[in-house]
Amino acid sequence: MAKEITPRAEDYSQWYLDIVRKAGLADNSAVRGCMVIKPHGFAIWEKMQQVLDSEFKRTNHVNAYFPLFIPKSFLSREAQHVEGFAKECAVVTHHRLMADPNGEGLIVDPAAKLEEELIVRPTSETIIWNTYKDWIQSYRDLPLLINQWANVVRWEMRTRPFLRTTEFLWQEGHTAHATREEAIAEARMIHDIYADFAENWMAMPVIKGAKTENERFAGAEDTYTIEAMMQDGKSLQAGTSHFLGQNFAKAFDVTYLNDANTLEHVWATSWGVSTRLIGGLIMTHSDDEGLVLPPKLAPLQVVIIPVPKPDAAINEVAEKLKKELEAKGISVKYDTDEKSRPGFKYAEYEMKGIPVRVAIGNRDLEKGQAEVARRDTREKNFIPLEGLGSSIEKLLDDIQQNLLLKALRFRQENTRQADDFETLKQIIEEKSGFVSAHWDGTVETELKIKELTKATIRCIPLDQKQEEGKCVLSGKPSKGRVIFAKAY
Amino acid sequence: MAKEITPRAEDYSQWYLDIVRKAGLADNSAVRGCMVIKPHGFAIWEKMQQVLDSEFKRTNHVNAYFPLFIPKSFLSREAQHVEGFAKECAVVTHHRLMADPNGEGLIVDPAAKLEEELIVRPTSETIIWNTYKDWIQSYRDLPLLINQWANVVRWEMRTRPFLRTTEFLWQEGHTAHATREEAIAEARMIHDIYADFAENWMAMPVIKGAKTENERFAGAEDTYTIEAMMQDGKSLQAGTSHFLGQNFAKAFDVTYLNDANTLEHVWATSWGVSTRLIGGLIMTHSDDEGLVLPPKLAPLQVVIIPVPKPDAAINEVAEKLKKELEAKGISVKYDTDEKSRPGFKYAEYEMKGIPVRVAIGNRDLEKGQAEVARRDTREKNFIPLEGLGSSIEKLLDDIQQNLLLKALRFRQENTRQADDFETLKQIIEEKSGFVSAHWDGTVETELKIKELTKATIRCIPLDQKQEEGKCVLSGKPSKGRVIFAKAY
Repeated sequence: MAKEITPRAEDYSQWYLDIVRKAGLADNSAVRGCMVIKPHGFAIWEKMQQVLDSEFKRTNHVNAYFPLFIPKSFLSREAQHVEGFAKECAVVTHHRLMADPNGEGLIVDPAAKLEEELIVRPTSETIIWNTYKDWIQSYRDLPLLINQWANVVRWEMRTRPFLRTTEFLWQEGHTAHATREEAIAEARMIHDIYADFAENWMAMPVIKGAKTENERFAGAEDTYTIEAMMQDGKSLQAGTSHFLGQNFAKAFDVTYLNDANTLEHVWATSWGVSTRLIGGLIMTHSDDEGLVLPPKLAPLQVVIIPVPKPDAAINEVAEKLKKELEAKGISVKYDTDEKSRPGFKYAEYEMKGIPVRVAIGNRDLEKGQAEVARRDTREKNFIPLEGLGSSIEKLLDDIQQNLLLKALRFRQENTRQADDFETLKQIIEEKSGFVSAHWDGTVETELKIKELTKATIRCIPLDQKQEEGKCVLSGKPSKGRVIFAKAY
Repeated sequence: MAKEITPRAEDYSQWYLDIVRKAGLADNSAVRGCMVIKPHGFAIWEKMQQVLDSEFKRTNHVNAYFPLFIPKSFLSREAQHVEGFAKECAVVTHHRLMADPNGEGLIVDPAAKLEEELIVRPTSETIIWNTYKDWIQSYRDLPLLINQWANVVRWEMRTRPFLRTTEFLWQEGHTAHATREEAIAEARMIHDIYADFAENWMAMPVIKGAKTENERFAGAEDTYTIEAMMQDGKSLQAGTSHFLGQNFAKAFDVTYLNDANTLEHVWATSWGVSTRLIGGLIMTHSDDEGLVLPPKLAPLQVVIIPVPKPDAAINEVAEKLKKELEAKGISVKYDTDEKSRPGFKYAEYEMKGIPVRVAIGNRDLEKGQAEVARRDTREKNFIPLEGLGSSIEKLLDDIQQNLLLKALRFRQENTRQADDFETLKQIIEEKSGFVSAHWDGTVETELKIKELTKATIRCIPLDQKQEEGKCVLSGKPSKGRVIFAKAY
């Protein structure tokens, strides 16, 4: 089975597609650019949702649901927003089909044309701010802290499962505040939640930073991003949190009566992460044998396999271990299917990224031990049955830690400084990875570097050191380094 | 606040809309027929989702996600299915907008016309069975037990929040089986899960039955339904589970190699419940003071209110009670907001249907008691602080029981037998409710009765008694009674 995966070294892009398919994460669909998220992939998304949803609720957000459709005219209200989304949206123009009078099949019923076309939401700022107008009158209505879990559609020309699909699943938070400071604090708090989630659950280290003006969300005054390095050295923008200023409040005329009894426009944020995170998870940890999952997000954490097949003695030990692990909150499957042989099962669970495999055979039982294999390093060890549950619990923690450390090490090894343009260009072309370099702060220089190297400024790190330097391209003065990289 | 609700006796339909709005469940949106589900409404949906999702998983179903869009041609594949859905679907024809060259705003870019139009899914049988074709080859791939939580769109002419909206949220299960018997057993097991959920969680009694041929799902061989009686005597179809035979397997050519090595078409089911359940919940229990929620589905079960405002002594008792209740898994809010007076808060929480309200004042504390009000009967009692947590826990159980019994009693009082057509007609017109009557089994008679009375056959009850009788309209022989009612 593993043989069918193209090695990373041979074709990284094909390797990714092979993992997605062979690990049962997603399939192509009959609709261009839309994927089917298969049960194993969706179970990972459900784990992600649970953690994030409880973080949002812990910080006083509530969930709601807004319409899938947005009237076309809403999109034009905010000038930058329309620039960002009008060119890639699915447009509903009719509400009925009819039998083709000239043949077989169905045609669009011309009599059922909509007066105003509807856009399938690419993001929901406009429909939500149009609603907030009715919900916000006074400072008592603020802050308004709402999130929604939803599907969105952006008509992308080049798509890749999870990383860039026409339809994707995400959460989008939309909050309204009485002051600029409060809105900025909200955007940064969510930025922290995203970064913590990436590092502590996905074991995916991220650089926290602000986007340059050119890379900001369409309609934002500031965009905070988390950027992760994939195994090919490219950057993945894994989540963004936007301070929207008063742009949408002005576009939709949302004001509130402050405590001095004066009308003011409301301050806003929006923020989201999507099924793209699954793409990031795959590309951070997986290897040429298949998917590798951090235990905290693995839908199944431990699999127990009887060798060569179940019998009374093995069943007893396996069932006891299963109960012991479940009591610790660990998910376990005892695979008693006799249609497949152990070797086939090993390959299958490796492919699917199950963090720990326990093989129990009679010879091992006699020795009072079981063979435990960890997916991340593929090491196997014989572990005493006595205390096996606790050993496995500890092993899962080790794996989680190890994956994060390994990814951190990889990022460190692939982050370089460049103090002149040739070095920047050479690193990007020959080594890939992140390049830390000085930039003069202008959009012009940023675009020129992109044109010459295909690298973009991923972010201005929040922990950027004050350092006098010269822009690698223009030689103009700069006060700190930014991160350049090619990106997904 | 409660004054603003139209009494049921005055205008039932307006009463419903008032509850939806005043209890903060949903709002109209800028898009015709689409609602905004507000945080309180969405929190109820989340509770419903949790219970149902865990039931589906307990019975070995897994979640997945299929595309929002369906190629137009897919709809035509199953003859009855296309009849059922082609006339009410949102059609995507273009994938880009452009600036209007003749004026302001945006127009659809004529150059971005899709080769084949896409339908926004009204239900997903077609796109899913087109996918199953790739997933199913042998009997080892069966059964395939998949569910998805999704939004769907049906272009309805007359809409009402939750009950009938252009876009709604639901779950749709789609399963594939090796035999007819297995598929029927699946459809009936889910039917049982739906009925249990309605009765034991929603406290909404339902009649379990099969739909007549005329009322079946478009493409089904059998549709099982749960029918609930609303307070105006009308029936609400609250959930359906379909045995699809081999219709979709044939339409999408899904076959499997059985253990005799012969190719066979696969057997199918599909089943769903939607945000419509929230409409049913409202109309089963609520009164002229606002929403009434069964404790098991109330996002907030108990509210504690300091009278007239918080102080050290009240805070101590309230916080202790809160902890005690939370330890029992009961959700509690201690409302210390000093901007509103107790009377205002009482009305607000009554409106929102919070099952139990505890008022704590200093005079009561001196007597070692608190005032406990139950939302269902609006009774108030002084209860000793000693053991208050346990008293409230028991009270919540009582409320849950009482709501179910009350609804059962209401249904009993409003279910009548008719043995001739005039009686049937008179009951439907003057009393509403369910009418149990003999029917000759023909679509013709069914449609004629609908035309004359506006009542439809809601279902053929699964527990129908074998009874010789004559059809109320045609006088032809019948072997059992069916349920007639007007329906939402």
